[in-house]
Amino acid sequence: MTFEAFFPAAGERLRRDLAAFLAAKRPDVARVLPWGPDALRRLEAFTRKGKAVRGCLVALGCEMAGGRASAPAAVRAGSAFELIQSGLLIHDDIMDRDPRRRGGPSIHVQYARLAPGRGGAEAARFGTSQAICAGEIAIFLAFEAMAGLPGPAARTTAVGKLFASEFGLVGLGQMLDIEAGAARRPLTRRRIFAIYRVKTARYSFYLPLAAGWLLGGGRRSTLPALERLGEDLGLAFQIKDDELGLYGRPAATGKPVGSDIREGKRTLYAAGLLERARGAEAARLARVFGRPDATAADIDFVRDLAGRLGVRDEVRGIMEGLGRRARREIRALPVRPAHKDILEGLQAYILDRRG
Amino acid sequence: MTFEAFFPAAGERLRRDLAAFLAAKRPDVARVLPWGPDALRRLEAFTRKGKAVRGCLVALGCEMAGGRASAPAAVRAGSAFELIQSGLLIHDDIMDRDPRRRGGPSIHVQYARLAPGRGGAEAARFGTSQAICAGEIAIFLAFEAMAGLPGPAARTTAVGKLFASEFGLVGLGQMLDIEAGAARRPLTRRRIFAIYRVKTARYSFYLPLAAGWLLGGGRRSTLPALERLGEDLGLAFQIKDDELGLYGRPAATGKPVGSDIREGKRTLYAAGLLERARGAEAARLARVFGRPDATAADIDFVRDLAGRLGVRDEVRGIMEGLGRRARREIRALPVRPAHKDILEGLQAYILDRRG
Repeated sequence: MTFEAFFPAAGERLRRDLAAFLAAKRPDVARVLPWGPDALRRLEAFTRKGKAVRGCLVALGCEMAGGRASAPAAVRAGSAFELIQSGLLIHDDIMDRDPRRRGGPSIHVQYARLAPGRGGAEAARFGTSQAICAGEIAIFLAFEAMAGLPGPAARTTAVGKLFASEFGLVGLGQMLDIEAGAARRPLTRRRIFAIYRVKTARYSFYLPLAAGWLLGGGRRSTLPALERLGEDLGLAFQIKDDELGLYGRPAATGKPVGSDIREGKRTLYAAGLLERARGAEAARLARVFGRPDATAADIDFVRDLAGRLGVRDEVRGIMEGLGRRARREIRALPVRPAHKDILEGLQAYILDRRG
Repeated sequence: MTFEAFFPAAGERLRRDLAAFLAAKRPDVARVLPWGPDALRRLEAFTRKGKAVRGCLVALGCEMAGGRASAPAAVRAGSAFELIQSGLLIHDDIMDRDPRRRGGPSIHVQYARLAPGRGGAEAARFGTSQAICAGEIAIFLAFEAMAGLPGPAARTTAVGKLFASEFGLVGLGQMLDIEAGAARRPLTRRRIFAIYRVKTARYSFYLPLAAGWLLGGGRRSTLPALERLGEDLGLAFQIKDDELGLYGRPAATGKPVGSDIREGKRTLYAAGLLERARGAEAARLARVFGRPDATAADIDFVRDLAGRLGVRDEVRGIMEGLGRRARREIRALPVRPAHKDILEGLQAYILDRRG
């Protein structure tokens, strides 16, 4: 089976499982009207629009270890990953004041529209408060799914502990990222990598592969190899995300172009640009970077500058280097050739995707 | 053993366990400098300052079922309750813009002081973002503690599922509460009770008692009786909290007097006052209620009005009625007389406490 066949099939199973899990919660939340059923509907719609890469990687990890990709524990754990991801994104969009996500209004914007009264600052505050709660609920639902995984307790317990402990680090990685955005001094590439690793790479690639691997009965001694591979794939994924944020099409990415620039995010692009720009270009860059009101022309200028100064090529080179290292790590894994093919397809998708 | 002896001993064991649990996390979070160790220190200090009622109730539930109050699983589950409570309070203080909690600055205020640069709105935003993360981290730590409970898997799994699923309802209860505060129409007492039940009562009293009961090997058939008792104790606790918010001493409660009034919280006091006030008093009440800038004289007026209009007596009557019902429920529980004594002591403490 190829990557192109594996992921859509796993994604479809995951979305069916997510629907079944949330349907089973409905009688429970119907005690809290009207927000209970409404919040579940919003969370399901929001979660279904994601690419479900993390959830599908659990299924892949399980099959790599000798289990089935459709094993109920692996599919349910996949749903948990997608739910917690929704919770983190909901909180993330509050912190970054992102009005759009996954091709629609962010959850805090959705709730602001439901505010009683006149709108304005009070409505925004209402939306933020309700979305903090909705994010918590998504996180609680994820842990409920993890706590109810079927199968041998030794396996499900190990996965539950790993899951919870890695997400603690994700929260800390997010704190680093916020600090980096607020501090107006440049970051080294080394520091940017450290942030990417805890904020995205580990939990998005290593953790789901490892969770699936353990649920499928795989040996713990393979986890360090999955960790190295997962971190490299995850770093490449994050860097590609940065590229899409600057050069992608909003219709494909679901987010406006240049929001990282407007928010002053410390990406590899930002590091390269702030390092290399000179004179009037440096001055204009300083006026644009971190300004929520930067115009489309300002963003065009930044895109163009990153091309002319070689930053775009530099970042692409770093990403391709990570891809090459990941391919070597894939070949060395103690798994069947068919699974190496799927992982190589994943690696290619990460670097070539458009959204 | 009396309530007065049981709770301090259980609280002391809990604080030692919390310290040990967080100390074991330190090598892990040291990968994320400087925020990792700093966040653990802040969360520990913040959590230690709580009354630890929930954590101690887990120990009591365990002993009631025939286990030991010092059983490692019960103590660790107690730490999980205290950590998740910290996470919820951190997020709560962001939503309510509460600057103080547990006798010190709220976590978002603590982080705002660490903001790079000049302070003001940007510092507040920095503090809010970091505190959203810190709250998430506290929640993740709680689930990590729950995922690692020692003991028979059948018991720990049942407790883990119950824990996660009840907190989903807490999030929804919080959404109800936010909506109630934003909508400017009065709430019925019935609706206020419904909010208190999901937002506070169930998870603060029923859930820890039930978790301890299951960890101690108690029968599931007793859970409905614990649920009724827990809800009644929890409702009385919340109503007492409202009373302390209006009539308590800040030095004992750790919060400024009248913040519920300033925030326009839909308490039983608010319901009674808005219903009974007439003429010039109703007009002044409308000017004070929900106004963050209400003066100390305004709050004095509200306290005085609640006394004169009989609202204070009405609310106390409701609380005492819940206390009487809780005592009947305690006497009917299938537990030893010594534990009924402790529960009766708890019931008395809830109604008589000063902070």
